[in-house]
Amino acid sequence: MSAVVQTSALRIDGARLLRRLDALAQIGAIDGGGCCRLAFSDEDRRGRDLVVGWMRELGLEVTVDPIGNVFGLRRGSEQADPVMTGSHIDTVRTGGRYDGNLGVLGGLEVVETLNAAGVTTRRPIVVAFFSDEEGARFAPDMLGSLVYVGGMPLEEALAAVSIDGKVLGVELERIGYAGSAPLGQFKPHAYLELHIEQGPVLDAEGITIGAVENLQGISWQEITITGQSNHAGTTPMRLRRDAGYCAAAVATFLRALADEMGGSQVCTVGKIDLHPNLINVIAARATLTADLRNTDEALLQRAEARLAEFLQVLARDEEVSIETRRLARFEPVIFDAGVADRIEAVAARLGHTHRRMTSGAGHDAQMFARICPAAMIFVPSVKGISHNPAEHTEPADLQAGTDVLLHTMLELASQE
Amino acid sequence: MSAVVQTSALRIDGARLLRRLDALAQIGAIDGGGCCRLAFSDEDRRGRDLVVGWMRELGLEVTVDPIGNVFGLRRGSEQADPVMTGSHIDTVRTGGRYDGNLGVLGGLEVVETLNAAGVTTRRPIVVAFFSDEEGARFAPDMLGSLVYVGGMPLEEALAAVSIDGKVLGVELERIGYAGSAPLGQFKPHAYLELHIEQGPVLDAEGITIGAVENLQGISWQEITITGQSNHAGTTPMRLRRDAGYCAAAVATFLRALADEMGGSQVCTVGKIDLHPNLINVIAARATLTADLRNTDEALLQRAEARLAEFLQVLARDEEVSIETRRLARFEPVIFDAGVADRIEAVAARLGHTHRRMTSGAGHDAQMFARICPAAMIFVPSVKGISHNPAEHTEPADLQAGTDVLLHTMLELASQE
Repeated sequence: MSAVVQTSALRIDGARLLRRLDALAQIGAIDGGGCCRLAFSDEDRRGRDLVVGWMRELGLEVTVDPIGNVFGLRRGSEQADPVMTGSHIDTVRTGGRYDGNLGVLGGLEVVETLNAAGVTTRRPIVVAFFSDEEGARFAPDMLGSLVYVGGMPLEEALAAVSIDGKVLGVELERIGYAGSAPLGQFKPHAYLELHIEQGPVLDAEGITIGAVENLQGISWQEITITGQSNHAGTTPMRLRRDAGYCAAAVATFLRALADEMGGSQVCTVGKIDLHPNLINVIAARATLTADLRNTDEALLQRAEARLAEFLQVLARDEEVSIETRRLARFEPVIFDAGVADRIEAVAARLGHTHRRMTSGAGHDAQMFARICPAAMIFVPSVKGISHNPAEHTEPADLQAGTDVLLHTMLELASQE
Repeated sequence: MSAVVQTSALRIDGARLLRRLDALAQIGAIDGGGCCRLAFSDEDRRGRDLVVGWMRELGLEVTVDPIGNVFGLRRGSEQADPVMTGSHIDTVRTGGRYDGNLGVLGGLEVVETLNAAGVTTRRPIVVAFFSDEEGARFAPDMLGSLVYVGGMPLEEALAAVSIDGKVLGVELERIGYAGSAPLGQFKPHAYLELHIEQGPVLDAEGITIGAVENLQGISWQEITITGQSNHAGTTPMRLRRDAGYCAAAVATFLRALADEMGGSQVCTVGKIDLHPNLINVIAARATLTADLRNTDEALLQRAEARLAEFLQVLARDEEVSIETRRLARFEPVIFDAGVADRIEAVAARLGHTHRRMTSGAGHDAQMFARICPAAMIFVPSVKGISHNPAEHTEPADLQAGTDVLLHTMLELASQE
């Protein structure tokens, strides 16, 4: 038991963590301090190369699987299922520097802290980053971890086509991250993920640590509306078949639906493309996306059904044709209560305020919840801003979250 | 008076007109039989070169002015102000083959018919095509004729920037149509323009010839909405500053406004661009266009005021900032009643059904109405479809309209 006594005083090096976050943020840097490293882009490759270099410097055994997930293994004193932590380093087009990156670089910080203290855990530790978590270039999101846990055949994932018309498998080869490690090579004893909240709850309540106990279900659809292109001046309103108006009607309907349903229901139309997209031409075609989320599967299904009804009525009333295509669908996730309890206990022991909470975003952790005990550690996002260069988490909170990750991993890695 | 007796039997050659329409439609041809010849593009240049070649073959004296308007002069027996006819050969991105082109090639058909019959009119005849009538690449629309009549300084027009970031004057030089003829070189005795209706009225009523007596006023605005980019899953509905939702709200408001105002009021949002335009990111910025038209200036101003009020309330309620930029503004136009009477009389004499009507679209004729007696001849658009490759006018109607153009021009060109 002397090892436990020694490790209880360990703390991660917050300045070192910040330096790594800053170095990674230089790759694909955009105005305002954010990042654009879309999955399997040149920027993604450069980010991967940087992180893999750090993994090797820390003595981790690096393996890459056929969907491009990267794992750094730190051996334990026993051959046993590892405790895994991870997240992602791809970003949306207007991403911040913490989303995903904190979980990966926090994991490296845990390893470096253990290395410096000469601690060997009983179970191995794995720090991983998963491909295409954002889904901003290739749908669905969380693709790498989804494939890892067997939720999508590898061949189907490799055939995915990006918004810029590229095939995932080709892009993966191009950037040199089509690896040969067996898919699902580790069956974790437990999976932990440190992440910024990306929402306003912790910041608003002044709480440092969120022990995430569940996660909203996600429904993504692409809606394509085909009407009739026509002259904006000469076509009476009653004779129009205006795909652009219909797209707008869907977006305003979804706002009203979310307001009406209340609770955790959120609806977003983040993408609208009109064709021909000219000032004086009634749009012939509109393509838009609907992002619906709820922590309750029955309510999420109700929202989907309400949208489907609306589209049917809209198509009839406006004499347009409407097609929908499912881009992603994940049921709400319940994380492991034991792991969440442990996160809270560690946070309390380290003197940090804490609460149980729901994740409004999808995370790789939800995939691992299918195959092992999993939970997440949230730290505050200032004003809840994320997917935005202005995304920010205070250094003290970054350190606190990584310390909680360190000590929760130490406890889990000491289990038989 | 013997010349008048001889000319009354003249008819244009419908097959020859169709051949020219077809040849021009091959340039920038798009699927479905339409055309894409955006102003000052390579396709526009090739279209111009073809028409200029025809003008020269017909013995017209071709001049080009500094905004790229092209004029073909046929001398009369007297030095006097000419009777001018014209239109445009640029198209929207998904244009048809008749919009604009008919007026220009109909004018050439008039010239060829007179040439073949050996008729010399008293007044000169000018067939013209004007630059950038559509405004689909460089706002405002009707730019060439606007500059011709002194409604916009040449320097301002040449400095206009296109939707693809190009400067008008540079593009005009590039395609070789920055001419040296004096701006406004002809002060027409009268201006006539033959055009497809681009609306459903003549087709629905089974009438061949529209004598256009007025034209809707046009108000174009670009609306830029700035909100807050944020995560689509974690941001509660009440905390959103969603520029995408606001754009949709503007589009649905404008539909409701047009329905409420009724009459000739039409409102169109044909262009919406969201940023970053990703499925799981609340849009930080939306740029959309509003196209409002009415035949009554007071009602058009009321529509503009209602939109402005709506934007103010929306900005406050949704905590977004909204900026508007006027892209074009034309008051409703009253054409010359004498010329419209003459069109109807000619149509009746030639045995065609006819009616007075309003133009819902803007046309170069409205610019000439500022400086000389002007009116327009409309022929039916099948189902009112225009700005669409499916745009169609029956060959018999093309011929009828061009015959009416011929005989109205003959009458006007015989005037002292």
